[in-house]
Amino acid sequence: MSPFTGSAARTDRWRHLRVDLSDGVATVTLERPEKLNALTFGAYADLRDLLAELSRERAVRALVLAGEGRGFCSGGDVDEIIGATLSMDTAQLLDFNRMTGQVVRAIRECPFPVIAAIHGVAAGAGAVLALASDFRVADPSARFAFLFTRVGLSGGDMGAAYLLPRVVGLGHATRLLMLGDPVRAQEAERIGLISELTEEGKADEAAQALAHRLSEGPALAYAQTKALLTAELDMPLGPAVELDASTQALLMTGEDYAEFHKAFTQKRPPKWKGR
Amino acid sequence: MSPFTGSAARTDRWRHLRVDLSDGVATVTLERPEKLNALTFGAYADLRDLLAELSRERAVRALVLAGEGRGFCSGGDVDEIIGATLSMDTAQLLDFNRMTGQVVRAIRECPFPVIAAIHGVAAGAGAVLALASDFRVADPSARFAFLFTRVGLSGGDMGAAYLLPRVVGLGHATRLLMLGDPVRAQEAERIGLISELTEEGKADEAAQALAHRLSEGPALAYAQTKALLTAELDMPLGPAVELDASTQALLMTGEDYAEFHKAFTQKRPPKWKGR
Amino acid sequence: MSPFTGSAARTDRWRHLRVDLSDGVATVTLERPEKLNALTFGAYADLRDLLAELSRERAVRALVLAGEGRGFCSGGDVDEIIGATLSMDTAQLLDFNRMTGQVVRAIRECPFPVIAAIHGVAAGAGAVLALASDFRVADPSARFAFLFTRVGLSGGDMGAAYLLPRVVGLGHATRLLMLGDPVRAQEAERIGLISELTEEGKADEAAQALAHRLSEGPALAYAQTKALLTAELDMPLGPAVELDASTQALLMTGEDYAEFHKAFTQKRPPKWKGR
Repeated sequence: MSPFTGSAARTDRWRHLRVDLSDGVATVTLERPEKLNALTFGAYADLRDLLAELSRERAVRALVLAGEGRGFCSGGDVDEIIGATLSMDTAQLLDFNRMTGQVVRAIRECPFPVIAAIHGVAAGAGAVLALASDFRVADPSARFAFLFTRVGLSGGDMGAAYLLPRVVGLGHATRLLMLGDPVRAQEAERIGLISELTEEGKADEAAQALAHRLSEGPALAYAQTKALLTAELDMPLGPAVELDASTQALLMTGEDYAEFHKAFTQKRPPKWKGR
Repeated sequence: MSPFTGSAARTDRWRHLRVDLSDGVATVTLERPEKLNALTFGAYADLRDLLAELSRERAVRALVLAGEGRGFCSGGDVDEIIGATLSMDTAQLLDFNRMTGQVVRAIRECPFPVIAAIHGVAAGAGAVLALASDFRVADPSARFAFLFTRVGLSGGDMGAAYLLPRVVGLGHATRLLMLGDPVRAQEAERIGLISELTEEGKADEAAQALAHRLSEGPALAYAQTKALLTAELDMPLGPAVELDASTQALLMTGEDYAEFHKAFTQKRPPKWKGR
Repeated sequence: MSPFTGSAARTDRWRHLRVDLSDGVATVTLERPEKLNALTFGAYADLRDLLAELSRERAVRALVLAGEGRGFCSGGDVDEIIGATLSMDTAQLLDFNRMTGQVVRAIRECPFPVIAAIHGVAAGAGAVLALASDFRVADPSARFAFLFTRVGLSGGDMGAAYLLPRVVGLGHATRLLMLGDPVRAQEAERIGLISELTEEGKADEAAQALAHRLSEGPALAYAQTKALLTAELDMPLGPAVELDASTQALLMTGEDYAEFHKAFTQKRPPKWKGR
């Protein structure tokens, strides 16, 4: 555990998510299959808090986000979220929408890679959770739909209007966010929305394999790669090059870099420590 | 009409464009087919002023930009623009180039989606008008060419060096703007420059269909989606997520969001008001 | 030679690179074929200093970066760089990583297009040199690998975490920088990492043809196109449109723009002066 933990308690049980930890990999499963894993206030809050806890504990080196049953996630629940927000006041509406945005920021800013394992529908907030992840491992049944305008809302939900143009370009992003039409796996792969297209029914397995590969690798190098990708989307070239230089100088004092060189000269695979 | 209109007169007749309004859709047609719709000072000025008028009146919910005859638009007229600018002084040159840039900003910032309907050539400023549009609906005859360097000018004309890398990536954008080579419909689709590829001769029809679909939909949701896409290209992740949150909180107080929920529970399609 | 040269001497001989100048084209060849052109401290320093010299002299209108032998460049030499950095102190590590970043900034900011001619491996720093170039002309043997995490370092080396998402989108960039897996020519073309895919063994020839085409063209227009592409990645839309306007107004006072119009009216090809 990190020395930088204070008094905050560790959560015993996540009531709105299934969380499994093994070998440095956290698997977070949305588990309302009867509702296509539609999100509730509790699920958003648990995602926000879980990511904060995992980030400060440093026990996890990769996280898989998956969905139980027929699909990944159908987005905000029509009754429990859309219905409930209709009677909220201004401050509550802002609180709710800030909470969902915090989940996206937590995914982009946590110090480990996040892998979305996608089969079936990834719609609305479900599509944005996948979009915010570092990797989207999907099988041919995957179907993305940023369907916010279909419920009368802005396509720019939870950072989607920031992220999607940076993943698939402004032209595709405009089409997907404005119209909310479904994007099937083949098109998603063509436009760069999928990181790895697997065989039918193999998304979870491939996501786990990738997570374990990352977990066994040089974790600090991965964490910094992610941090720089996130930061440098928002930086000019000059400062970005300077950030790369100081990051790399720092990592060149780390154990894994020395281990690589030793292993290379001894003609053996490196034993990564993640430091 | 919007309450936020003042003393400015409504333009009776656009002398350099054909403008048709019906069912909330404005169709703006470049109409110099004998010159492949080459742009004149008047056409630029009319586009600038028309977009400003339509933006403040709020009578329009979608706009189609089309070209009469064999192609979409061959760019600035060689005689009426290139010839004329050769005898302009410094201030006039700057005024001209600012005006063309204002057209692009108006397309990006007007509160309704703009759909370019493209067949045949979209060259020079014509290619940038298409690029600045939210949707590019094109048929297989479409041919884009950012041919500014071919006339001795910078490929970064009217915001092209800003927009094109954000639509097709820096590699393709460098090639297209530096060399000015033509890009045919098939390649344009592959690199993300086309939103919808239609059958031969069907670009206008498909653009109209899309415009009417948008016009009948939740117009405020579309307008905000466009505004966020435009704004968040220039924002860091944190503020973008905050902007999404406050936009979404606002739209959750709107009529269309309530109507969606009502229609959903009544198992009927929503009747959008655009508010 | 530019009037804006001072006392700084011209380098007589580049010891770590082969530099050929002809017809306004500089060809810079990495020449350690026995080591797959692995980079040394000297090669980085020479690239940095050569680009600075060529930029101030203005004798060059295009630059080709090529590799001798079986591949383009295998990246930093395992012994001469990785080994050496293991015994460096903090200040030296920072100096080294700043130097490599300066090479990338010099490629992005020099006033002439840079064309990477790629066959075989372009790995590590070699992949970033190609990425920073304006054009990547590659044959089917080309294989890119951003393998920094494979040696325990951050994938964000020399600006890669800034540049790669802007070339291929954030999804592909995350995958390539995080995992360091090789990307073959076909995939590189599909995701926008290659500007021109040539026949087997023809990358050098095609790169030279492109360089000579650029060298014979309107060099100032090309230089400004490149400068705007680089600058406008880091600018909001409004200022970018203003920069385009003033750049274009300036070039409209130039000799090449007048020459285009004269040649067009005389129905002959323009004779570009590059001014």
